[in-house]
Amino acid sequence: MNWRAKLLKLDGLMPHVSDTNALEWGTLADCAEDAELVFLGLDTDESGGTKPCFAAVPAVGDASPRMANPRLWAVMATLSPDDLAIYGGARSVVDWHARHRFCAACGGSTELAKGGWQRNCTNCGAQHFPRTDPVTIMLVEHDDKLLLGRGLGWPEKAYSALAGFVEPGESIEEAVAREVLEESGITAREVHYIASQPWPFPSQLMMGCTAIAEDTEITLDETELADARWFTRDEVQAAMSGDADAPMNTPPKQAIAHHLLQWWLDKGK
Amino acid sequence: MNWRAKLLKLDGLMPHVSDTNALEWGTLADCAEDAELVFLGLDTDESGGTKPCFAAVPAVGDASPRMANPRLWAVMATLSPDDLAIYGGARSVVDWHARHRFCAACGGSTELAKGGWQRNCTNCGAQHFPRTDPVTIMLVEHDDKLLLGRGLGWPEKAYSALAGFVEPGESIEEAVAREVLEESGITAREVHYIASQPWPFPSQLMMGCTAIAEDTEITLDETELADARWFTRDEVQAAMSGDADAPMNTPPKQAIAHHLLQWWLDKGK
Repeated sequence: MNWRAKLLKLDGLMPHVSDTNALEWGTLADCAEDAELVFLGLDTDESGGTKPCFAAVPAVGDASPRMANPRLWAVMATLSPDDLAIYGGARSVVDWHARHRFCAACGGSTELAKGGWQRNCTNCGAQHFPRTDPVTIMLVEHDDKLLLGRGLGWPEKAYSALAGFVEPGESIEEAVAREVLEESGITAREVHYIASQPWPFPSQLMMGCTAIAEDTEITLDETELADARWFTRDEVQAAMSGDADAPMNTPPKQAIAHHLLQWWLDKGK
Repeated sequence: MNWRAKLLKLDGLMPHVSDTNALEWGTLADCAEDAELVFLGLDTDESGGTKPCFAAVPAVGDASPRMANPRLWAVMATLSPDDLAIYGGARSVVDWHARHRFCAACGGSTELAKGGWQRNCTNCGAQHFPRTDPVTIMLVEHDDKLLLGRGLGWPEKAYSALAGFVEPGESIEEAVAREVLEESGITAREVHYIASQPWPFPSQLMMGCTAIAEDTEITLDETELADARWFTRDEVQAAMSGDADAPMNTPPKQAIAHHLLQWWLDKGK
């Protein structure tokens, strides 16, 4: 045991957050002797000393890995960007370990390796690596209006950019066009990449794009979306300004969709 | 059995290719009654009729999923872009099925679901989805020279763009800077996305970027690369023109690295 090492305090997958809204850290003495530890990196303190940082793999992974729960969402809104990045990366990896204790190839037990960035099968020797799922999220434009959608079960005025996983065999640009067509019936062209963001539910790489719509007639995929509609620049501006009378509520500031909408508003100025 | 359905002819994961260098197709009668079938899409023939297209999951997946073998490489070089896309997507998904017959969460048996785009655990009910691994591949520029690397075990003059997997918690831009620093010791800034390409070994999404190097002093990571060096525009141009005296050989036309190099040459004209 290196007494100088730091251990990220987690309750399952929830972070411990201090009164000053910072992530809390303990020492390796806080976890079981046989705990599986993921190496997060080296932390440099004010005197220039470095401490290795770890997170322990929880007993159980995320039961609904494709969503964030409202309590966690509230906690994340208070964290600094640096703490949010540390927590997001740690959460993705320890959750992956907790949900991958067996080998997909043979069903044998796996064990943590390479400081937590790999699992090896104790039976067949297969190596497994944490996964990151590329997801496209796109602003579809037509005549200075934006196509936005409301997911199933979302609040009444919650609209955001359409999004979907990149499938095997697709480029980013092909995935954008396919998702837009599937979800809204709209043909999209001139897909351009804008920015990306990691998203730890469970471990997505959100890739923000724009595209031009060839038409405006929406055919909704009701298995994916509750609604989709076109919003004017004024409507998006009102929503981003927090206007209660706006016809939509914007995605939270932590989400790339918020930044994409701001990018679109700034671009049109 | 739908007699109109088409079955992609595969020998393990190798495609059957005709004398005219086209993918060969059979019927569902060609596979076992209990074969796991992946739905690839609908094929429209010249008379406007549609036929569903399938591929069968092989008994064994790819033993070295992070590489293409030389024989397959030669076959792929002869396929049309459309056939290459069909084969690449099909290969990625059937290989994933063959290597995921067990549940990573509980070790139970899994079975194919949703036409082959999902596997469900027969024991705990967990749902598993084909994975796509985002990989950055980058042209690092300094003073009209390009930083290129030679992988371990590559032929003597084979150089290509540096590349590496995006890790959980990283954006594309952060992954590019980290990989360049790790592999070459070079600090990269101003990362910009150029283009993407799916790569079916086993199922990668290659995301091509450019970046500017802040310095030129290379510190090689010898666990990752056999060599890395700076190439002038004339040297890259000579290699891309097939000049036998060029100090490097370029990546093959099927690889996104080839297109990135051409993009860089065209940009400088």
